[in-house]
Amino acid sequence: MLHAVIMAGGTGTRFWPESRAKRPKQLLPMLGDETMIHKTVDRLGDLVAKKRLIISTTSELAPSIAQELNDLPRGAILAEPCKRNTAPCIGLAAFMMVRDDPEAIMAVMPADHVIETEERFREAIRYAATLVEEDPERLVTFGIQPTYPAEGFGYIEQGEPIDSPAASEPGGAASPPTYFVKQFREKPDLATAKGYLEAGRFTWNSGIFVWRAQTILDQLQRYEPEMYEHLSRIAEAIDSAQYEGVLKKEFAAIEGKSIDYAVMERAEKVLVVEAPFDWDDVGSWRSLARLKGTDDQGNTIDAKHVGIETTGTIVRGGGDHLIVTVGLEDCIVVHTGDATLVAHKDHEEAIRRVVDTLKEQGETKYL
Amino acid sequence: MLHAVIMAGGTGTRFWPESRAKRPKQLLPMLGDETMIHKTVDRLGDLVAKKRLIISTTSELAPSIAQELNDLPRGAILAEPCKRNTAPCIGLAAFMMVRDDPEAIMAVMPADHVIETEERFREAIRYAATLVEEDPERLVTFGIQPTYPAEGFGYIEQGEPIDSPAASEPGGAASPPTYFVKQFREKPDLATAKGYLEAGRFTWNSGIFVWRAQTILDQLQRYEPEMYEHLSRIAEAIDSAQYEGVLKKEFAAIEGKSIDYAVMERAEKVLVVEAPFDWDDVGSWRSLARLKGTDDQGNTIDAKHVGIETTGTIVRGGGDHLIVTVGLEDCIVVHTGDATLVAHKDHEEAIRRVVDTLKEQGETKYL
Repeated sequence: MLHAVIMAGGTGTRFWPESRAKRPKQLLPMLGDETMIHKTVDRLGDLVAKKRLIISTTSELAPSIAQELNDLPRGAILAEPCKRNTAPCIGLAAFMMVRDDPEAIMAVMPADHVIETEERFREAIRYAATLVEEDPERLVTFGIQPTYPAEGFGYIEQGEPIDSPAASEPGGAASPPTYFVKQFREKPDLATAKGYLEAGRFTWNSGIFVWRAQTILDQLQRYEPEMYEHLSRIAEAIDSAQYEGVLKKEFAAIEGKSIDYAVMERAEKVLVVEAPFDWDDVGSWRSLARLKGTDDQGNTIDAKHVGIETTGTIVRGGGDHLIVTVGLEDCIVVHTGDATLVAHKDHEEAIRRVVDTLKEQGETKYL
Repeated sequence: MLHAVIMAGGTGTRFWPESRAKRPKQLLPMLGDETMIHKTVDRLGDLVAKKRLIISTTSELAPSIAQELNDLPRGAILAEPCKRNTAPCIGLAAFMMVRDDPEAIMAVMPADHVIETEERFREAIRYAATLVEEDPERLVTFGIQPTYPAEGFGYIEQGEPIDSPAASEPGGAASPPTYFVKQFREKPDLATAKGYLEAGRFTWNSGIFVWRAQTILDQLQRYEPEMYEHLSRIAEAIDSAQYEGVLKKEFAAIEGKSIDYAVMERAEKVLVVEAPFDWDDVGSWRSLARLKGTDDQGNTIDAKHVGIETTGTIVRGGGDHLIVTVGLEDCIVVHTGDATLVAHKDHEEAIRRVVDTLKEQGETKYL
């Protein structure tokens, strides 16, 4: 059966001051009226039964997420006591799934991506599931055709195309191109990213995966035996009175690692499917402007705003607060009730440092 | 006796959103803790008795000014029913003064200038008063030695130095250089302003004047007979029950003109005293930065603020609202409860257009 885990533990510091520690990106309606996590759950439609859905997040965010997704069964939310990156999160969810369904196929996805072509997304997940059913050792990732030389994404280098009945079903709908992964590449510099685009066989690593839950556990046991040990001790305690204590102690003892680093870059049968759906990670204010579009001055306005000689600028605010921009080019202005950000687009990476600076200065109320 | 009129009818649109129609610059503590009008009154010290002081403003601002200057005698505030520039304002004040004191000497000054060397200012006014006592036909202005080729000020071209006992009192303190005015020059373009600076005989027109009240009335009668007629009808009605109605009707019927245009540019015995006091008209956010000084990043911060890679920027806010700037250079960020301005310093002149734009759009609550 198909299960899914939605990873919703991110802090979204790049969207400060809209996103805060207690209300990060996935809990905000970054596009449209619904929160990103709500959209992510809705996107799965009837592909995954609600009782086979796990939302993985931090204990701090768990109450807000439970409130936001109040039609999910109790226990759907897996609250991690501390942040340990994606591998422990995925491993723990996999343990939960195999308890009830040893043959569980597991789709993994972040809570804060934008995918508007939802039916294509579901088809792509179904297709990946058939690839996994064909060969249970396969680990399937989705690669996004790059549209610009992004420095902020990991890249996947394609190897040989796979030879699979699912990939070339006679008379069926054309399946998306699928390859063995030759290599995962970390976030490149601009020149390297341009080289990848020219080479043509590189896609962005979407962070969306499909595999058998038992297979990813086997891989973790092989490559990260200590992590696996801690996770299995948690899994054993699930129905006991000691669960909370064991979870806290064992999870904290894990060395945090991404699933890419822990497994994907080491495993053998790793496939990359060229994603047949649109995709954006909404990783920055700029990407939001890209998604929302711009007016004829190149501005993206989501506020009560008057602009004079203003171009290429993103303005966000709320309610009746008036934001006036004069002589601005390529800036970001975000107003909230207790804090305002004004940044130049070229320095967007530095916005993440704002949160660190506020922590250092003890200004916790703005985090 | 020395009388004074403080002109406090300005709207200060360049300081939007801090200054508003109902609380313009003169009613704000632009520097330090006190409002500019309060500082202007305090600056006069014992030079002018409170009962010989007139505050000229608009009827809209009169209640706020009365509240701010609550130790002034009743009737000190002259509320104009509509804006008609400086000549009618000065003329009406002069009529008030000569009623009680036909020999009244009248100092005229705006309510929103910064002059920190207060004793020097009072000495300069006293000196101008002696010039007027020597020759009651004299009209005395103060010229400010220019420090940069400002385009935003009018200039005064000096002629011959005057020959006066007051100007060269033997054994007395050196009097400030005093000249006949050769010509008034309107706000120049940059090249012209640079030429003025090189020529050396040009000073900024400070808008501070000293003359006999009766003399300025005589000059108005000569050069602006219609304006004089309207004003004298108001003056005649002062103690009557019809005063408010006459003021409204006659003042509205006046053609608005500046005192420079109505009298100074035409009169004969016009003198310019090189001001021996410091002076700034606080005409813009930039001038405020100049007056307040900058930190080692060139920033002028008057807000709860975190700056990352921010230089040459002015940040103003209030209370606990946090303003964060990232990658900004030479900008102006002003946050208030209901509106925020973000402008590039190079486009500062366009800030005045904000108020016009808001009027056009019917956004009166932000004016």
